[in-house]
Amino acid sequence: MSQPEYQSISPSDFFYRNREIAGFSNPSRATYTAVRELIENSLDAAETRLVPPEIYLRISEVADQKDTETKIYILRVEDNGTGVPAEHVPKVFGQVFYGSKYELKQARGTFGLGGTMAVMYGQITTHEPVKIASSTGGKIHEFVMNIDIQNNRANIFKHTVKENPTKWRGTAIEIQMDGDYSRIMYRLIEYLKQTAMVVPYADITYVDPRGRLYKFERGTTKMPPLPESVLPHPHGVDVETFKRLIATKKAKNIKDFMMDNFQGVGAITAERFLEMAEISQKTKPKKLTPEDIVRIVRTTKEYNKFKRPIASCLSPIGEELLETGITKELALTEEDYIKVVTRKPSTYLGYPFIVEAAVVTGRTIRKTHGSGITLYRFANRIPLLFDEGSGVIWKAANKNINWKTYRIESDTPLVIVVHICSTKIPYKSVGKEFMADQPEVEKEVTNAIREAARGVRGFMSRRHRIAREKRRLNIFNKFLPKIAEFSARLAEREPPNIDKLLSLVSADIPEVEKKLEEVPEIVEESSE
Amino acid sequence: MSQPEYQSISPSDFFYRNREIAGFSNPSRATYTAVRELIENSLDAAETRLVPPEIYLRISEVADQKDTETKIYILRVEDNGTGVPAEHVPKVFGQVFYGSKYELKQARGTFGLGGTMAVMYGQITTHEPVKIASSTGGKIHEFVMNIDIQNNRANIFKHTVKENPTKWRGTAIEIQMDGDYSRIMYRLIEYLKQTAMVVPYADITYVDPRGRLYKFERGTTKMPPLPESVLPHPHGVDVETFKRLIATKKAKNIKDFMMDNFQGVGAITAERFLEMAEISQKTKPKKLTPEDIVRIVRTTKEYNKFKRPIASCLSPIGEELLETGITKELALTEEDYIKVVTRKPSTYLGYPFIVEAAVVTGRTIRKTHGSGITLYRFANRIPLLFDEGSGVIWKAANKNINWKTYRIESDTPLVIVVHICSTKIPYKSVGKEFMADQPEVEKEVTNAIREAARGVRGFMSRRHRIAREKRRLNIFNKFLPKIAEFSARLAEREPPNIDKLLSLVSADIPEVEKKLEEVPEIVEESSE
Repeated sequence: MSQPEYQSISPSDFFYRNREIAGFSNPSRATYTAVRELIENSLDAAETRLVPPEIYLRISEVADQKDTETKIYILRVEDNGTGVPAEHVPKVFGQVFYGSKYELKQARGTFGLGGTMAVMYGQITTHEPVKIASSTGGKIHEFVMNIDIQNNRANIFKHTVKENPTKWRGTAIEIQMDGDYSRIMYRLIEYLKQTAMVVPYADITYVDPRGRLYKFERGTTKMPPLPESVLPHPHGVDVETFKRLIATKKAKNIKDFMMDNFQGVGAITAERFLEMAEISQKTKPKKLTPEDIVRIVRTTKEYNKFKRPIASCLSPIGEELLETGITKELALTEEDYIKVVTRKPSTYLGYPFIVEAAVVTGRTIRKTHGSGITLYRFANRIPLLFDEGSGVIWKAANKNINWKTYRIESDTPLVIVVHICSTKIPYKSVGKEFMADQPEVEKEVTNAIREAARGVRGFMSRRHRIAREKRRLNIFNKFLPKIAEFSARLAEREPPNIDKLLSLVSADIPEVEKKLEEVPEIVEESSE
Repeated sequence: MSQPEYQSISPSDFFYRNREIAGFSNPSRATYTAVRELIENSLDAAETRLVPPEIYLRISEVADQKDTETKIYILRVEDNGTGVPAEHVPKVFGQVFYGSKYELKQARGTFGLGGTMAVMYGQITTHEPVKIASSTGGKIHEFVMNIDIQNNRANIFKHTVKENPTKWRGTAIEIQMDGDYSRIMYRLIEYLKQTAMVVPYADITYVDPRGRLYKFERGTTKMPPLPESVLPHPHGVDVETFKRLIATKKAKNIKDFMMDNFQGVGAITAERFLEMAEISQKTKPKKLTPEDIVRIVRTTKEYNKFKRPIASCLSPIGEELLETGITKELALTEEDYIKVVTRKPSTYLGYPFIVEAAVVTGRTIRKTHGSGITLYRFANRIPLLFDEGSGVIWKAANKNINWKTYRIESDTPLVIVVHICSTKIPYKSVGKEFMADQPEVEKEVTNAIREAARGVRGFMSRRHRIAREKRRLNIFNKFLPKIAEFSARLAEREPPNIDKLLSLVSADIPEVEKKLEEVPEIVEESSE
């Protein structure tokens, strides 16, 4: 009869032991995840500052290595973001569960893990410290450090403060890590391309280990408005959150407390709500019993007259910018058709979200891709490249929509882009690869694709009509001279000059196309 | 130009904010996950004690609730396991990242999270404390407590010590939580049934909220041998682990250090390995430079003469027990065919693993399920019920195998059971629903299914031959009397007595079947 041994481990130690759940499962995947996490931090940092991001990424091999699949690479990412204040650098990159991503607003990062995990992976595979330089506009602080994994804190080997004559602002980080570049090469480029698609105001430069330069140039300097931090919506609150608010916020009574600490609760709503919860308006928040708190929280789920969650904490890309990004990265021409839709805000479990979708078809798509649907999936402007089949977007595009309704055959080349933004993306894993099913999200994604697809139906209808018209005119062109000649012979006359007649019916094709373009689109709703 | 705010959060707070990554995404799923985590802890605790588990699960509704989908349930799980020593109870159930699951051996739990997460979910949805009673054989300790989420520690409201006249040993836990029973009812029963399939030596009693009693009785009291804690295999070691060993273990030189702290490293292996790593055998471990350590760790990946990882840290179910469990829970009869295979140990990334597979076909399967393959997936004796299509087992069964080779048509009803056991299951998420692709694992799973399927091919061949033989004998039965009569008339004689002749060719069917059973199985290898 044995008794197990018990022990406590630090958050760093937990993720060190279980790094695959954060996306660091093997050298090739770790290379991908590290790049992604660092670039996302950089984009977030530049957007917070309201400047168009300028990202420089370089992956290089350490010299004189054996020719094995797994090699040591140096990963360097530089940005023009806010910069991390010197006192926070060791924690931001050396402590799991320390970060700036814990506010209620849309952000790429949500777990506050990525940067630290990249540093940790480098350290455990190469034992080399990370080098970080950062400036918030003043001096430049350089750190050489690694992570004390068992204690979840940074070991600082060197901290240098330098002058900053060029007033550089931003962060540069350099990590040595085991990687497998050849296996992940194409995914990395695809990731950068898709990032450029949804962040069309970013300049991204990438130098790969073979010295090749990839430039993803911005197509605009216009940026979507910044998301704001908001108060929680009462519908999404739980007992723990409520207790924390009571402990930290001052209010003379529960009515004021409700109005001050939740979004969209005015005097009348507060009164009616408290009446339903059977709590006196004048109760002091700190005097509420545990039972009172439970009753209040339960009532938030039942009271159905709260305003919808406000969406200023969200930052959709917008139809114009998304069209710019897609057109740029897919190199669309005038022979292609693109329809972009940004839906109105919706909510699931008290969290607001917005779905954006684009459907693209045309000659370029035919050339670029094979047959059928190519899906680009994004969540809070992060491209999701893995586990496509597990996610809600794949299901919406492939299962929920009857494409024939939109005059699209199953082998019609089609690009579908879906972007979901929310204060809370329902990721199923810390590796942020795909989203858990939420019925409200699935419905909105399906509707967004449908709305964009309706534009395509008009385009497809016109294309069919133009093709038919061309065929009709070709027939005139071919047979009218013959008929004229034959009739003339029958009547024993000279053949007439039919050029005038031909020019009447066979008005030039561009002109026909133009006229057909003006015909209004078919807009009847299908019954699917 | 704004600057983000930084903050640190506790591990409890992290999982409170991101509970969906641990499987607590909504009331129905949370009900399922809470049951699963508690039952798995109970099974682990009883197995550690080497007694056949006896688990009692009860889910009941709190009285006088409104008739909504989400209600408050009381979840109670009792076991006959080791019991948790009183001083550890508050931490085991009130602190994230505290547990007994951090050793290098096979266990159901691996994250040390599940029990605490169930307590936390109960607390944040109902604000009720958890009740825990536990005894390691002496007195019974009862706790009423909850979690201080911001500080990742237990709040103990009450601790009572009671006499234990019946010498009860085990743990009982009672959690109040928001749940949605009706949505998850069938999954819960399926989970218990599948658990009973791979733990055929457990007695599980379940009383559901409607008062219905489900009993899953053990089919045997035989248990597979306990897994042992083992030293790490050098191939799976990284710089961090190596550093930790150096810091805590004593050894007079690196050669002894290698032999003492890694499995399968004898004097000769240690010498050859250190020569390859260019480290003097006499170096004191604490004098190794960081570069030395990196070189040693790198060399572990390249040195290919280590022994295979030892598999005593694994505990496969075994062919006999697995057959008992499957036969019991699928209620197989003599008209069904089952083939169970336990493969030899393999390794991925330095972790040992064993795959077990069973293929079942026959009349019962035909009746129980629709057409095609029904897949039961298990990892370290945990049933995996969600996200089937994302996992490596689904891929192996549906994509990698040409079933026609085994005389199995695509609509032949077939049950496939796959169990993977390992010191490290490559789960993709903390929710433990499916496994990341590892080529070695995929290959072994495919081979295990193939091996079991070859047994089925023999069975199918015999079934085909029996059917053919029956048809042949039916023809004799039908036509011989006619022929006899006709011939007799032609010859103007009395028809002969053909009964004797018939009895010669149409030996009774059971006899034919028996003889055909004795024909050796076709064992040629296919070229698939």
